Amino acid sequence: MGREERKRPATLRTVARSAGVDVSTVSRVLNGSPEDAARAASRETAEAIREWAARLDYRPNPHAKSLRTQRSNLVGVLVPRLSDVVLATIYEGVEDAAAGHGLATFVMNSHDRPAEQRARTELALSRRVDGLVLGDAHHDGVFAGELAERGVPFVLVSRHAGEHPAVTCDDYRGGRLVAEHFLALGHRRAAVIAGEPFASTGIDRTAGFADRYREEGLDVASVHSGFDTVGGHRAAEQLLAADPRPTALFAVNDFAAIGALGAVRDAGLRPGADVAVAGFNDIPLAAELPVPLTSVRSPMHEMGRRALELLVTVLDGQHPESQRLEPELQVRASTAGQEIVTR
Amino acid sequence: MGREERKRPATLRTVARSAGVDVSTVSRVLNGSPEDAARAASRETAEAIREWAARLDYRPNPHAKSLRTQRSNLVGVLVPRLSDVVLATIYEGVEDAAAGHGLATFVMNSHDRPAEQRARTELALSRRVDGLVLGDAHHDGVFAGELAERGVPFVLVSRHAGEHPAVTCDDYRGGRLVAEHFLALGHRRAAVIAGEPFASTGIDRTAGFADRYREEGLDVASVHSGFDTVGGHRAAEQLLAADPRPTALFAVNDFAAIGALGAVRDAGLRPGADVAVAGFNDIPLAAELPVPLTSVRSPMHEMGRRALELLVTVLDGQHPESQRLEPELQVRASTAGQEIVTR
Repeated sequence: MGREERKRPATLRTVARSAGVDVSTVSRVLNGSPEDAARAASRETAEAIREWAARLDYRPNPHAKSLRTQRSNLVGVLVPRLSDVVLATIYEGVEDAAAGHGLATFVMNSHDRPAEQRARTELALSRRVDGLVLGDAHHDGVFAGELAERGVPFVLVSRHAGEHPAVTCDDYRGGRLVAEHFLALGHRRAAVIAGEPFASTGIDRTAGFADRYREEGLDVASVHSGFDTVGGHRAAEQLLAADPRPTALFAVNDFAAIGALGAVRDAGLRPGADVAVAGFNDIPLAAELPVPLTSVRSPMHEMGRRALELLVTVLDGQHPESQRLEPELQVRASTAGQEIVTR
Repeated sequence: MGREERKRPATLRTVARSAGVDVSTVSRVLNGSPEDAARAASRETAEAIREWAARLDYRPNPHAKSLRTQRSNLVGVLVPRLSDVVLATIYEGVEDAAAGHGLATFVMNSHDRPAEQRARTELALSRRVDGLVLGDAHHDGVFAGELAERGVPFVLVSRHAGEHPAVTCDDYRGGRLVAEHFLALGHRRAAVIAGEPFASTGIDRTAGFADRYREEGLDVASVHSGFDTVGGHRAAEQLLAADPRPTALFAVNDFAAIGALGAVRDAGLRPGADVAVAGFNDIPLAAELPVPLTSVRSPMHEMGRRALELLVTVLDGQHPESQRLEPELQVRASTAGQEIVTR
């Protein structure tokens, strides 16, 4: 190692790389409580990490320190878009739980653009938040990794990335539930409207669904799409154009599923009777649709609540485990073909 | 006037009361640019206001002064609930326009509770916002009046209250458009799902609708409701229980209309064919519903954009006029009875 490099103090990441362990392990050993350090690594590993930290002149980030000592009782929340009611509902859960801890919250959109994620996060930090709840993590984990390295207290919600503490729905299991329901109804040709490729929600839901079909020796087509009605409509058009046509569509969120219902209708087909359509999240209006939508209920509000509770433990210096909440399938007319009263 | 009272410096409101004019007129005369003062009041009135201000020892609020001189380039936004996509979309308009001015924004929910409106506003001010965009004004105008008196720069969006600068949809005209559509289809027994009684949106939309029916010598029943699907469902149940039953329902927002569609279906009736249902705002999924929803399109995103632009002029010391944007009726199967393909 050259002289120049020795002069710049090392980051958590450099220490992690040198010691050959995870950033979060380094963070827990160097910054966590003694119990936490003991849980994170064996005595030998912890020893090696401390040795590397000393050799590389690692110093805890002063910004992170000040965040922990001077509490502002303010928590910043980032989501992709609040016009997605799923995120708005998760935010309400965060807000409700925060009130119970005497914390105030605010929220900003990042539109899933890395530059905006960075800019909004800096803004929140400049307004002296105690910590962050991030609902817009990308599966590559790059940005979350940077924050962890800087020692910024945060938790992820709705989407997971890397080993960072996250509260999510068990999305993989939710996808399997839909596949089992479709298979029980006799659908052998199914397809997935898979959402954005960078979100763990869409990735896991699609994987759970496809894995269950694969166990029956069946492949499923899938297309990526926006998480909105327009994206779902377009993706469904594309999937319905296949020959032979799929008889069942699983959209990884309800808005995309509602777009798919529109595409089924526009193709002169009857949702529920000719083509089964299922969504994910079970937003309140799913049950109110003229053809009520089968959907996997994810505990959105509860997810937000738990994310805030998890952040509180992070602010207390703990390194909590991630949580995966149980999904529940709600079967309605869009897959069962009954209850359709408009003739 | 007693001695005690003379000692406390007067507020804008006291001056306004004494001079017998509006708070906003006093503010423009005492704090506005010379042009603005000239537009706000005649020379005699301005003279009288200045005399009262001197006599009552009025001093401009120092908080307001510091807000104007030390720009933070941060704008706080308050809405009732972000899980209402209308407000989330308006917020996106605010955010987009703010970016064009180098301003950052954040948003908080007030749940339409006065105590939360106050607490969140104080929080935003403590974070040194340049100004506020309020989407949760109550029609009584009490809280907006307090802010104006303190000299806090703000604009209203979506709802108006008193004489405070506001960007809204022309909600009264939107209500009339629906009534004209229903009347043209021959509906003589119509009813309104009227929303919350404290929101100018619901008040104006209901008034426009009812006035147009009254011109035909017809009365319309109306019930207040939440602005959500559950509220709309309940209100529709109540209205459909009347004998004779109304043949057309106007819900003052789309979520309530979707709840009404569900109630119509649950009553064994066909939306569009047996009972016409129309909503308001034309949220993106209205067109995608299995029975596509007739709705009055309100320019939600544009409303947010304009509100931010209006705030920028307020921050420049101007006292801009309120704006009312044009609504547009989108006729679909929920009132026309066609395009219903599910049999």
